[in-house]
Amino acid sequence: MVKFGGKFAALTLSMNGSEGVLYTTEIRKMTTVYKKWGYRMKKLPLQKAFTFLEPGPVVLVTTADKDKLNVMTISWTMVLDFTPRFAFMTGSWNFSYKSLIKNRECVIAIPTVEYLKKTVQIGSISGAKIDKFKKFKLSPLEAASVKSPLIKECYANIECKIIDYIQKHNIFILEAIEAWVDDSNKAPRFFHAVGDGRFIVDGEKVNHRRIMMDKIPSGV
Amino acid sequence: MVKFGGKFAALTLSMNGSEGVLYTTEIRKMTTVYKKWGYRMKKLPLQKAFTFLEPGPVVLVTTADKDKLNVMTISWTMVLDFTPRFAFMTGSWNFSYKSLIKNRECVIAIPTVEYLKKTVQIGSISGAKIDKFKKFKLSPLEAASVKSPLIKECYANIECKIIDYIQKHNIFILEAIEAWVDDSNKAPRFFHAVGDGRFIVDGEKVNHRRIMMDKIPSGV
Repeated sequence: MVKFGGKFAALTLSMNGSEGVLYTTEIRKMTTVYKKWGYRMKKLPLQKAFTFLEPGPVVLVTTADKDKLNVMTISWTMVLDFTPRFAFMTGSWNFSYKSLIKNRECVIAIPTVEYLKKTVQIGSISGAKIDKFKKFKLSPLEAASVKSPLIKECYANIECKIIDYIQKHNIFILEAIEAWVDDSNKAPRFFHAVGDGRFIVDGEKVNHRRIMMDKIPSGV
Repeated sequence: MVKFGGKFAALTLSMNGSEGVLYTTEIRKMTTVYKKWGYRMKKLPLQKAFTFLEPGPVVLVTTADKDKLNVMTISWTMVLDFTPRFAFMTGSWNFSYKSLIKNRECVIAIPTVEYLKKTVQIGSISGAKIDKFKKFKLSPLEAASVKSPLIKECYANIECKIIDYIQKHNIFILEAIEAWVDDSNKAPRFFHAVGDGRFIVDGEKVNHRRIMMDKIPSGV
């Protein structure tokens, strides 16, 4: 259990599987949100987690280092395996780097288009001197298996352990251990960075499942 | 110069910078297409090449091993640097793997939505026993700096050297050395794999260049 200083004093409720706790100092409020979270965030079968990363959306990555939560915006990610394993690229120039190296875990949170502007803003300032959760009015939710928080406002949250770091190329290798979705949003649309300041929002969907049936792992 | 057997008998024209040659046995036809290519494929400033990979589209990767051209479909890619450097994941189960390891080069070709179904089909069969360029009516164009062919039907083509291979995680590290775009298509739309047989086509574009000005490298 991470202890969050100030407003994020650590409080826990017993947890069982798919449940969790919103960080707050008010028990009543917390219990309400706890129930709300129980409703909103559904456990996603782990073998489906890669389907949120494979399309290449912009993601948020949260970390918790002692009493300091942080969140960064990342676009340079890759799926490595269906199990699932992921990679992302970041380095020592990034404030979250120290926590990633030290605590060997993070949460990958996938925002929908409603949070596009906020996601860009989150990626444009460092968490070194500010509390980005507070500044951007993001609600950290206690994760099931890592100390890094889920983000309530995101459609999907994937709890990850960092299992390797390839320093030569600044590549972090992650293994997902829990995944959550807010399935109250029935038609989530994600967004992709072009890299020049423009972003592309998800458009139409096309189904070619029949052609590639042999390539799709069971349960996906 | 790679020698292509059968239909792809090797023929060259003098090359200078942004020009190239279509592989064909008919000189006249070749010259025509050569000119056409000179028109269609424009040299893309190398520092902009990452903007085609960063959104996370499905891509085609071509290789040339002696007289054998091949093309595979890949969705697991990542930008590593603006210079530009990329990563993708594949392994020995893939027919192109041997050529990637041996020849240390490839071309990343980015297809538009008009080629979605064909791209899925290309990814669903192995090049071990068939000529996928022939089967799928793709036109290989001679690249400027690698032996792997460009694909005339793709909007962007990026010539890459493989500068490292991280066997433990099946990650190839690539450095782009030339890039081309077919700018006759004024509104190209690319597509992203979900991983479960569905694909997401590019939708609306949103510009947040002003917010992230400090993060955009010069010339992009």
